[in-house]
Amino acid sequence: MSDEYLVKEGSKVLIYIDGRRKRVINVRKDGKFESDKGVLLYKDIIEKPYGSKVTLSTGYRAYLLDPLITDYLMHGYKRATQVIYPKDLGFIALLSGISSGSIVVEGGTGTGFLTSVLAHYVRPNGKVFTYEVREEFLEIAKKNLRMSGLDKFVVYKNKDIRKGIDEKEVDAVFLDIPDPWNALDAVYKALKPSKPFIAFLPTVNQIEKLYMALRNHGGFIDFHAYELMLRELQVEPGKVRPQTLMIAHTGYVVFTRKVIKE
Amino acid sequence: MSDEYLVKEGSKVLIYIDGRRKRVINVRKDGKFESDKGVLLYKDIIEKPYGSKVTLSTGYRAYLLDPLITDYLMHGYKRATQVIYPKDLGFIALLSGISSGSIVVEGGTGTGFLTSVLAHYVRPNGKVFTYEVREEFLEIAKKNLRMSGLDKFVVYKNKDIRKGIDEKEVDAVFLDIPDPWNALDAVYKALKPSKPFIAFLPTVNQIEKLYMALRNHGGFIDFHAYELMLRELQVEPGKVRPQTLMIAHTGYVVFTRKVIKE
Amino acid sequence: MSDEYLVKEGSKVLIYIDGRRKRVINVRKDGKFESDKGVLLYKDIIEKPYGSKVTLSTGYRAYLLDPLITDYLMHGYKRATQVIYPKDLGFIALLSGISSGSIVVEGGTGTGFLTSVLAHYVRPNGKVFTYEVREEFLEIAKKNLRMSGLDKFVVYKNKDIRKGIDEKEVDAVFLDIPDPWNALDAVYKALKPSKPFIAFLPTVNQIEKLYMALRNHGGFIDFHAYELMLRELQVEPGKVRPQTLMIAHTGYVVFTRKVIKE
Amino acid sequence: MSDEYLVKEGSKVLIYIDGRRKRVINVRKDGKFESDKGVLLYKDIIEKPYGSKVTLSTGYRAYLLDPLITDYLMHGYKRATQVIYPKDLGFIALLSGISSGSIVVEGGTGTGFLTSVLAHYVRPNGKVFTYEVREEFLEIAKKNLRMSGLDKFVVYKNKDIRKGIDEKEVDAVFLDIPDPWNALDAVYKALKPSKPFIAFLPTVNQIEKLYMALRNHGGFIDFHAYELMLRELQVEPGKVRPQTLMIAHTGYVVFTRKVIKE
Repeated sequence: MSDEYLVKEGSKVLIYIDGRRKRVINVRKDGKFESDKGVLLYKDIIEKPYGSKVTLSTGYRAYLLDPLITDYLMHGYKRATQVIYPKDLGFIALLSGISSGSIVVEGGTGTGFLTSVLAHYVRPNGKVFTYEVREEFLEIAKKNLRMSGLDKFVVYKNKDIRKGIDEKEVDAVFLDIPDPWNALDAVYKALKPSKPFIAFLPTVNQIEKLYMALRNHGGFIDFHAYELMLRELQVEPGKVRPQTLMIAHTGYVVFTRKVIKE
Repeated sequence: MSDEYLVKEGSKVLIYIDGRRKRVINVRKDGKFESDKGVLLYKDIIEKPYGSKVTLSTGYRAYLLDPLITDYLMHGYKRATQVIYPKDLGFIALLSGISSGSIVVEGGTGTGFLTSVLAHYVRPNGKVFTYEVREEFLEIAKKNLRMSGLDKFVVYKNKDIRKGIDEKEVDAVFLDIPDPWNALDAVYKALKPSKPFIAFLPTVNQIEKLYMALRNHGGFIDFHAYELMLRELQVEPGKVRPQTLMIAHTGYVVFTRKVIKE
Repeated sequence: MSDEYLVKEGSKVLIYIDGRRKRVINVRKDGKFESDKGVLLYKDIIEKPYGSKVTLSTGYRAYLLDPLITDYLMHGYKRATQVIYPKDLGFIALLSGISSGSIVVEGGTGTGFLTSVLAHYVRPNGKVFTYEVREEFLEIAKKNLRMSGLDKFVVYKNKDIRKGIDEKEVDAVFLDIPDPWNALDAVYKALKPSKPFIAFLPTVNQIEKLYMALRNHGGFIDFHAYELMLRELQVEPGKVRPQTLMIAHTGYVVFTRKVIKE
Repeated sequence: MSDEYLVKEGSKVLIYIDGRRKRVINVRKDGKFESDKGVLLYKDIIEKPYGSKVTLSTGYRAYLLDPLITDYLMHGYKRATQVIYPKDLGFIALLSGISSGSIVVEGGTGTGFLTSVLAHYVRPNGKVFTYEVREEFLEIAKKNLRMSGLDKFVVYKNKDIRKGIDEKEVDAVFLDIPDPWNALDAVYKALKPSKPFIAFLPTVNQIEKLYMALRNHGGFIDFHAYELMLRELQVEPGKVRPQTLMIAHTGYVVFTRKVIKE
């Protein structure tokens, strides 16, 4: 195993105890991880390989994992706002068609979940330009993206995206704001022809309003409004069943794309 | 608009007529597109910009779009097998944590849907090693990936992944084969510690069997079995409702990750 | 087995061949049942007990079953309109609290599915008063309910329920019409205090409009809007999985109940 | 309004404060209802009509409602076991085809939810024979059914239904026990030919095992395994959306029916 796959000072590590106890930590020589299952001193994990089993102060076992993007989101980031969950993030990213090198614009940075996923996929040569009117959210998002190392692929703008998008010929625009219909001129001007505009919206009324505005505006085709429901199965041998509770609704994903207006 | 955003001979174009009539074509000077709504000669679209409106022989309108990855999958690829749909593909890709530069292994190339999404995300410096025992599927997958331009990021192997994985220290392993439990040794050896193994399985019994094999094998933690249901809304102003029919089941996504066995 | 459990001339029988081939027939001495699996002469089934296996002209087997209420609906009734399916019918009936002896009012007879379920539950001493403006639907519904023997518990009214309900102190009102908000005065006057009013509506906009009208009208509390999704499992030993396709949406069930206005 | 629609001593009343505060009470002259929104003395509601608005000690308003069957279940009954919810109860009842006068058998009384719904629909001349091995559950169920007034339509048996069903020629058998496959002989003997047997089961493995046992046993056809998912909409004008959390799984409904074995 190569050197760089050892935990070092400054490494990020997902401490995995069990399904409910996972946390992404930033390894500092003098820090420690505390949980109801025991304590772990960071100095004791430095130089251990990722994937190792370690023992908490109580004798309880834990694992040191190299965090995945979803670990950062779900077990590392501080939340400032409602977030978009992985089920929707993966779908949004795939529908948008973006990949390494893409130039994308996001309105409504919020906690930075979608920002992170976009940055994760467009790196190292692409860029995410993210607009957020509330500076306090932008600060939290920045801190979150610094943790996951995605910060350097993002340009943060403390601006109202409805008033205009500075970038041109972008590969996709994403809006997670309450009134995306007020940003359609900006969106249209920023997008390359044939490229997608995707909005995330919690209510049916917003979808309806957005559709009407899109049709009114012209220059958009291929409308879709999707909802994803995620169920997790409980798999105990001989007792397989869907989990009792599920998040039944977070929001709808609206997809459309730009064509040249005549 | 820059030059390269014009349709050229050899370009791929999504001809978009309406929600039910979309097809990705490969532009050849002497070719033509035929549909129940009319005919389009390819020579008439060369040098037109992407995003343009064109007129079919019948007077019906269509649009020339730069295909997104999902357009290639859904409206371009020839299908040889059951496929994994975008709702699951986006989720699988995100859960796996892969991005540009990742080295990944796939077992069960099939039609090449997942292969394409993996290649799309790991390019330009990453690589997908895909194993398929049936040569005829591999040929179809290759042809599909050549269409989408993703072919160069893939190494095709006409081999049984259950008998071994040649690659080492890979960032993720994906299996879409009926008996993934028979490939666990190979999977374990190939993966970097802390990295994910993801399987796609249509039946509950396969999930149960895989879980039991994973627990027996040891060296895997953080088990999840997910199911995604996708509903599309019909959005006519004043008449918003979910679509009547939906694909209620394709398969389950099983996620786990490797830890170091003692 | 007692005499009356034999098939007689005039009996209704569910001919059950397999999951896709079921039909409720009315036994006439000289009639016959025809299917792609063979023919069955009714004279050959008279005096056979319900539950018997019989042989079609082709040698294929079938069963003679005493039809359940859902068999009449799904495999006997002629459809004139969109119908409410059993998943919603059972829920609507239970929520309404009706049982033997209840006096209920329905607006929008349509094909008579809900009418039948209501009659089925209120018999023998209760009564269903059903309003339908389109006489041709009423004729089809009557014919359907005569088949299932539920006809005698129903009073058919070729009237517009929005203009008034003749009955007073009823135990529940059910509306399956496009604009239930236009019938609220009639509904309110007909209902016993504390009894439910239930509407079945396909679109979200109708729900919203009905809620606003109910709140405006006053005298209604305990609002609920439900959606039921039904999935069927395919159960082959060792291969259990949800069915691929499902009816994802038929309509929403809106529930409320009357209180005394001051 | 007729006399008997007034609240009397001994009446059951649903005190409705709001969506989260509902309780079915038994009116005793000297009793009182206590909630976090205030107190209501029962003596103050005697002789008030059902549907009235009353005022709690705090000035907060509440309504006096005549309880529906689902109010008794959800806001009146004491729970001793996992219960079957209204979404499944309505569907099970409708599928079974039972109505006033039916003679039905239930195995696994538990808290008495299904017992109550069956009694509710078969009354006044039908009967529910319910088997339960645990006497303490039977006591709770009896107390529950006395509250809803359904007690007199039920015969309680502190017996193991797997060892035999005393009744013959019954219209339907319902099992909510962990191992229904061990009761198939008893079920088969008790049922009228062509009548349904319905089981409620939480896990996929139980469904599979039951199907195999049914096929092995013979004499059953028309197999179905259903799952119902209930979503409630939040309907605030201009902000309609599905509720965030939902009960994603309670159990599966297995349906089959008896034919004559040769």
